[in-house]
Amino acid sequence: MGELFGYGDIKLYAGSGCLELAEQISNYLDVPLSSYDLVEFPNENLFVRLHGSVRGQDVYLIQSHGPPVHRNIMEMLIMTDCLYRDSAGRITVVFPYMAYARSDKKDQPRVPITARMVADMIEVAGADRYMTIDLHAGQIQGFFSIPGDVLTAFHILSDYFVNKRLRNAVVATADLGFAKKGRNFAATLNVPLAFVEKRRDIGNTRAHATTVIGDVKGKNVVLVDDEVLTGGSMCEAVEILKENGAEDIYLSFTHPLLVPPAAEELAKLPIKEIVTTNTLPIPKEKRLPNMTILSVADMLAEVILRAHEGRSVGELFNE
Amino acid sequence: MGELFGYGDIKLYAGSGCLELAEQISNYLDVPLSSYDLVEFPNENLFVRLHGSVRGQDVYLIQSHGPPVHRNIMEMLIMTDCLYRDSAGRITVVFPYMAYARSDKKDQPRVPITARMVADMIEVAGADRYMTIDLHAGQIQGFFSIPGDVLTAFHILSDYFVNKRLRNAVVATADLGFAKKGRNFAATLNVPLAFVEKRRDIGNTRAHATTVIGDVKGKNVVLVDDEVLTGGSMCEAVEILKENGAEDIYLSFTHPLLVPPAAEELAKLPIKEIVTTNTLPIPKEKRLPNMTILSVADMLAEVILRAHEGRSVGELFNE
Amino acid sequence: MGELFGYGDIKLYAGSGCLELAEQISNYLDVPLSSYDLVEFPNENLFVRLHGSVRGQDVYLIQSHGPPVHRNIMEMLIMTDCLYRDSAGRITVVFPYMAYARSDKKDQPRVPITARMVADMIEVAGADRYMTIDLHAGQIQGFFSIPGDVLTAFHILSDYFVNKRLRNAVVATADLGFAKKGRNFAATLNVPLAFVEKRRDIGNTRAHATTVIGDVKGKNVVLVDDEVLTGGSMCEAVEILKENGAEDIYLSFTHPLLVPPAAEELAKLPIKEIVTTNTLPIPKEKRLPNMTILSVADMLAEVILRAHEGRSVGELFNE
Amino acid sequence: MGELFGYGDIKLYAGSGCLELAEQISNYLDVPLSSYDLVEFPNENLFVRLHGSVRGQDVYLIQSHGPPVHRNIMEMLIMTDCLYRDSAGRITVVFPYMAYARSDKKDQPRVPITARMVADMIEVAGADRYMTIDLHAGQIQGFFSIPGDVLTAFHILSDYFVNKRLRNAVVATADLGFAKKGRNFAATLNVPLAFVEKRRDIGNTRAHATTVIGDVKGKNVVLVDDEVLTGGSMCEAVEILKENGAEDIYLSFTHPLLVPPAAEELAKLPIKEIVTTNTLPIPKEKRLPNMTILSVADMLAEVILRAHEGRSVGELFNE
Amino acid sequence: MGELFGYGDIKLYAGSGCLELAEQISNYLDVPLSSYDLVEFPNENLFVRLHGSVRGQDVYLIQSHGPPVHRNIMEMLIMTDCLYRDSAGRITVVFPYMAYARSDKKDQPRVPITARMVADMIEVAGADRYMTIDLHAGQIQGFFSIPGDVLTAFHILSDYFVNKRLRNAVVATADLGFAKKGRNFAATLNVPLAFVEKRRDIGNTRAHATTVIGDVKGKNVVLVDDEVLTGGSMCEAVEILKENGAEDIYLSFTHPLLVPPAAEELAKLPIKEIVTTNTLPIPKEKRLPNMTILSVADMLAEVILRAHEGRSVGELFNE
Amino acid sequence: MGELFGYGDIKLYAGSGCLELAEQISNYLDVPLSSYDLVEFPNENLFVRLHGSVRGQDVYLIQSHGPPVHRNIMEMLIMTDCLYRDSAGRITVVFPYMAYARSDKKDQPRVPITARMVADMIEVAGADRYMTIDLHAGQIQGFFSIPGDVLTAFHILSDYFVNKRLRNAVVATADLGFAKKGRNFAATLNVPLAFVEKRRDIGNTRAHATTVIGDVKGKNVVLVDDEVLTGGSMCEAVEILKENGAEDIYLSFTHPLLVPPAAEELAKLPIKEIVTTNTLPIPKEKRLPNMTILSVADMLAEVILRAHEGRSVGELFNE
Repeated sequence: MGELFGYGDIKLYAGSGCLELAEQISNYLDVPLSSYDLVEFPNENLFVRLHGSVRGQDVYLIQSHGPPVHRNIMEMLIMTDCLYRDSAGRITVVFPYMAYARSDKKDQPRVPITARMVADMIEVAGADRYMTIDLHAGQIQGFFSIPGDVLTAFHILSDYFVNKRLRNAVVATADLGFAKKGRNFAATLNVPLAFVEKRRDIGNTRAHATTVIGDVKGKNVVLVDDEVLTGGSMCEAVEILKENGAEDIYLSFTHPLLVPPAAEELAKLPIKEIVTTNTLPIPKEKRLPNMTILSVADMLAEVILRAHEGRSVGELFNE
Repeated sequence: MGELFGYGDIKLYAGSGCLELAEQISNYLDVPLSSYDLVEFPNENLFVRLHGSVRGQDVYLIQSHGPPVHRNIMEMLIMTDCLYRDSAGRITVVFPYMAYARSDKKDQPRVPITARMVADMIEVAGADRYMTIDLHAGQIQGFFSIPGDVLTAFHILSDYFVNKRLRNAVVATADLGFAKKGRNFAATLNVPLAFVEKRRDIGNTRAHATTVIGDVKGKNVVLVDDEVLTGGSMCEAVEILKENGAEDIYLSFTHPLLVPPAAEELAKLPIKEIVTTNTLPIPKEKRLPNMTILSVADMLAEVILRAHEGRSVGELFNE
Repeated sequence: MGELFGYGDIKLYAGSGCLELAEQISNYLDVPLSSYDLVEFPNENLFVRLHGSVRGQDVYLIQSHGPPVHRNIMEMLIMTDCLYRDSAGRITVVFPYMAYARSDKKDQPRVPITARMVADMIEVAGADRYMTIDLHAGQIQGFFSIPGDVLTAFHILSDYFVNKRLRNAVVATADLGFAKKGRNFAATLNVPLAFVEKRRDIGNTRAHATTVIGDVKGKNVVLVDDEVLTGGSMCEAVEILKENGAEDIYLSFTHPLLVPPAAEELAKLPIKEIVTTNTLPIPKEKRLPNMTILSVADMLAEVILRAHEGRSVGELFNE
Repeated sequence: MGELFGYGDIKLYAGSGCLELAEQISNYLDVPLSSYDLVEFPNENLFVRLHGSVRGQDVYLIQSHGPPVHRNIMEMLIMTDCLYRDSAGRITVVFPYMAYARSDKKDQPRVPITARMVADMIEVAGADRYMTIDLHAGQIQGFFSIPGDVLTAFHILSDYFVNKRLRNAVVATADLGFAKKGRNFAATLNVPLAFVEKRRDIGNTRAHATTVIGDVKGKNVVLVDDEVLTGGSMCEAVEILKENGAEDIYLSFTHPLLVPPAAEELAKLPIKEIVTTNTLPIPKEKRLPNMTILSVADMLAEVILRAHEGRSVGELFNE
Repeated sequence: MGELFGYGDIKLYAGSGCLELAEQISNYLDVPLSSYDLVEFPNENLFVRLHGSVRGQDVYLIQSHGPPVHRNIMEMLIMTDCLYRDSAGRITVVFPYMAYARSDKKDQPRVPITARMVADMIEVAGADRYMTIDLHAGQIQGFFSIPGDVLTAFHILSDYFVNKRLRNAVVATADLGFAKKGRNFAATLNVPLAFVEKRRDIGNTRAHATTVIGDVKGKNVVLVDDEVLTGGSMCEAVEILKENGAEDIYLSFTHPLLVPPAAEELAKLPIKEIVTTNTLPIPKEKRLPNMTILSVADMLAEVILRAHEGRSVGELFNE
Repeated sequence: MGELFGYGDIKLYAGSGCLELAEQISNYLDVPLSSYDLVEFPNENLFVRLHGSVRGQDVYLIQSHGPPVHRNIMEMLIMTDCLYRDSAGRITVVFPYMAYARSDKKDQPRVPITARMVADMIEVAGADRYMTIDLHAGQIQGFFSIPGDVLTAFHILSDYFVNKRLRNAVVATADLGFAKKGRNFAATLNVPLAFVEKRRDIGNTRAHATTVIGDVKGKNVVLVDDEVLTGGSMCEAVEILKENGAEDIYLSFTHPLLVPPAAEELAKLPIKEIVTTNTLPIPKEKRLPNMTILSVADMLAEVILRAHEGRSVGELFNE
């Protein structure tokens, strides 16, 4: 490893939310995961005890916010407090997927902005820095007053499709909030853009109409989004795209939440390929035959290394 | 209600951790529980939306920290953020039982002080004040930088035993950390004190020896503690007390966590009566025939009223 | 006025960034603008001195962030410090247009998030609350840790078009970041949606191609956005829409920055009507004959009144 | 010395509250005490001026909180501010005895929690870390939001008694708040435990009754506590233990406050040996013939060294 | 009393640093001093307990910072913590004389800025506002981030001299740091200004030369300053003024610290009259026959009343 | 360069407020100025983008607060935010001249303390340390809670005059607030002191009378101050000094604001020499023939070097 400055060695701690990913990072860096006890008392309260001192070390705590969400968040915060009070030199909390990122604004009165609160909690627990991937909205970076590295799996996903050399393709989004990022995806693939618009029926808050804006007839469509939860919107989009004459349909998204019955529903549809990443663990039963899982481990590991050595992270992305 | 100052009306919100208790408080105060939507999304993320504005009002959010602990804590914090951002005049978070209160110090290296972190989180979410009952250690008050009312069910429990007029009684504790409070209990009943001491066997970290210090032979023993979790220590204490010749045995504690198999185990033992409170909901299946549940609702309601009106709470306890 | 709670009377202070709007608010509320000295020393340093005490009063400082931007921001902050140190009961900073709202995320490395910094500065200067209209991104609310009222001129603008009863209309956006809000606009008018997409030419960072996604041929287009700065994107959008066969074209946006040569350029184009608001002052020379300026004064005044009296603001919008 | 990281050399500063102890630490580390001027102006205000720069250095300020307590506390805080504003790399405040540690909770209404306030003051003055020994309650660690090393003289004291190989011994406490720590002491010596209970007479707040719980007849008693102030409780305990047939009596406690007439009173009693430490200076006139003073200097020095070098402190205690 | 807003009644608490002044304030306001216990434990630690609740009240804690300085400061802070944790509505700390106000800048390297630290401590203890009189430097107001009322005894002192109608007078200062305020004093009396300059001899750091700048020959000199500590500078100034032909000499200063041997030394000199205030208690033995003590009680009481009622304080001074 | 500790290399960034001075510092240190984009959008909003990463580096941002003042302040703050969010190791903001330093106290009611607010803003933007020269009042250091190096050009200016060996000289000040610093200047030159006093005419707030206190007849006068703004006071002082018989007159001040018509007015007067520094850029048209500009670049560069290497800065001034 390169020359260090200011802090001791890299220490890696894996939360229980993404063990496999943490191991891949550990392998890339050739730094073992540090061991600790994690006890859940009968009253569900968690307790941790590090096996070794982190005094003055450069600690990275890797924990994704998949289910059980609240336990995983609290585990992350308790570990952070523990590392802080053990006088870690610097604590970077790495959450490849951030929960509550969709509670990021008050688009109606009397609702919380939970993402800001989570950011505050991470800071108050003692974190010095954070790392995450593809926040639901880039603005969430501004919720943190500590510095952080907000990475993107955009290059990993778009490179995959560039390499596929799809002919006659179009990029589409099923969420208008993702329109701008969809445009960037389309621009990278150098193909046109289309939208699936969902609109509530007037006088019937449950029903809604779905339309396609832009030309998809006879085209291979890459449907892009940041995450897939239950897959409801995606399934509707696939159907309306097919109705509008789309040829092959590909799905591309960063965060595979895939809450049941997402996998089942997606399996039923005429989707050519589903391309996602491992920011969240995907259990075997959700791994569909047409699913390609690209790993973010090398990217995270390389960023951790650069952060540790004080080298540019932007350069990693040629920026 | 008396004369208000500075804030608007009392608004009561009940979290999902102690609905019944909140309703009792609502009845005492003749103030309805305010309604709101609580949604759990498929990714487990919670979302709340108040049905009415709390702008400038004096809001009390009642939420106990029983299981599911982490969901209940997050629900409390999200509600607090929501009330804060809706410009509540003052927010008092009322948690009759505080989770993580036993993670209150580093009695070994490399462990967290989670109770302090929870206190910080309550503050950072926007609470102005807090109320709670029988903290595991009184010092936890000092973890908060906001003011609060830390109440005790001591009077409710000890009055019950005073009224029982037990003859030939002795108070005993199963946890030496509760010795001082046990002494106060004994002094109020004007009876002697005894201790059950548990000590790890040297060279065998699992096994331990239990002894009785003080005289319990032929006496009616009131075994006191702040909470009963799995009941393990209590059961051992009952056995050794019986072995040492105790007559009737009573249990008295504030927080009925009663995690399985607590209720089953307690049911098997020769216990005359179990006296506890409703700081946590006790589902039917845990309500043993010899269990007396005293309500803390009136006390909490009266303290809320006094806090609202700017009257002394100490006077309520003749202090 | 209704019943007050906690604070004294409403005091209105107008910064030099939107005097006319402040006067309209003052008229609506029948509360005069409070007077103060504002001195600019020869070294450009500003100095303020209030003519009367604000001790314990409920103060609203109205200042928009148009040019001179930095002077206006500093004036707002200095006034806030002055009000705070004069022991105001509560200080609400009202900035109908927020500068730096587009610096809200790091979409490339090594750039600031100035909007968060501005939010922090408002808080550190002593503001208790804030009010603003149509933030560039709703998430910016989460940059503030103080509560605030983020209002929208959406209803004012969309009601205007609903009343126009345009036949054969379509709503279009020139910025894909505004796609979702465009959809809401279209839904309220119950008309279809289209997009103008701008994409950089590969290998030529200066040039870019513009395309229309969706059907505008023979339609009356309402082109919507949050603000118009130099009008460059809008002008390109108008041209490509016309090329694609659009009939009448309407512009609708909240914040009329209209930096030269915006007014001149817009005047040259075949635009039927430009509908905007007075969140920023529009000097005479920029008021085109086809421009309709709707006032946000009544909305702001009503919200100030409700905030003062502790009544719901959401209800004002039937929410 | 080992490899440093992040900060410059160790700098030791001794406050006027424990000069001798600071010198012992200085000797162990072979690092001289840094010199500075300490002036008390005629209005009692203190002023300090460092003789050399601490820019970037790893500074340890050693100051115990014995009398004159308030002057010593302020001296510590002023020194901290001075070191902070001279751009020290890291400031660790070492107070072997912490004043106000008994004001750690509100066990009655309308009282302060001064220990929390002292913790806040240490932080606000600019300390990065703290070190202390045997806090009155372990929870006081949670009053600090900065990390710290809370050490214990437990091993130093208990090892002394283990080496004494007392036969027929029992450990007793005179304060039920010390019961749990007393149990640990007894377990380490592998002897039984007893208690001296003090209880106020009902109807007479001044008088109180003292009883012994547990068996001390014919036993050598080690009476343990964290500190001895005026010695009142200890003297009563010795008397009642003797009345109950105790043989030799030993006293063991960490903090020798020994406020007059403590030394005189203890001198009169049949105490075999008084074993304490030098966390506070013991002037000659208080050094009784039967007093053994064990030094905490080596422990503090070793912990300072490990903190400086980023090595585990827990390992020092085989933990 | 006038109409209240937001807080309950005025509560007055007197610290032990200026009881008599507090009583005068109490008389003016016709509000009794609230009672409380103040205990000093044998280890010098202070403990307070309020006799009645201050929940929601508007509390004023009056405590001057004369000797014993550190005890008085800590007493003030502990009382503030106690009031804060008892949920006072608003806490205003009134310290007519602020200790450590001369440690207000780093005019040499490696020294503290203790006045800022004291300001921080007052805030961290829980004070909402502060009041004080004639700070050594006006800039110290900027050390506080809470609002406050920094009053001046300037009018009380200068009115006294205006009413004296001294003929042929000149105002002089013995400290060049007081030159500007001296000028204001002279301007109010409409008389000329002179200075006593003290300068260290080169090559002899102990000795110094004193000169008079300006014309004092045959004039009645009013020597003004903010405080008199040991009186050393004042005595030298009187001597050199006499040497330069001054007629009658008057002393005028706000804070009578008068540390021994100040009173004795001043008594020996040909001073016509010493005019000061009671911001600090002056014991009998320091009250010289030629001393006039003007009370600041009415001014403080009136400001407390106006602060309580939300009325302008500036108007009190015709500003 | 010497041995580093804790941070990476020195990185220098120059704001647009003092480019030339920054280049001189860069030359002294042999460290190039780091490049970055500074864009001003048509709405005046600024945007910056660093060309290279500052991760872990020891960054110095050099920006003086001359006109355009508010733009320069915001540029400094935005750069600081940018450096902070790019994970700089340490950020030192170097502002040779601090704007708003004269708004440092409330010497009348209802005015701000803007200098404190600017200090807070620098901290909230993410600065770790600051450097500045000759603050208007030394107390402003206490407005910062971060450590800093407040330097002085006193030695540079006074050495210049010492080397001039003026005979028959006297030092005078035109501002009584500068009296003490004037005395120090006089003492260093070992010459007497005099004052120009300006006093408002009673009953005419515009007019004022100017007098000389002390003896200047036939003397060479060095008129000293911290800054010259419009030169109004200086010009009046020169005139009255001449009227009182002064021979040659020299001007000496640190900060050459020289707002028009300062240069023109000074050019008209019989001033022998104007001695100042380059803490602010002086454009050609303001450089009078009798003006000597001494550079502070070497001093700033040397202090940056010492701060970087953790060496004493005080020693640089033999302190």
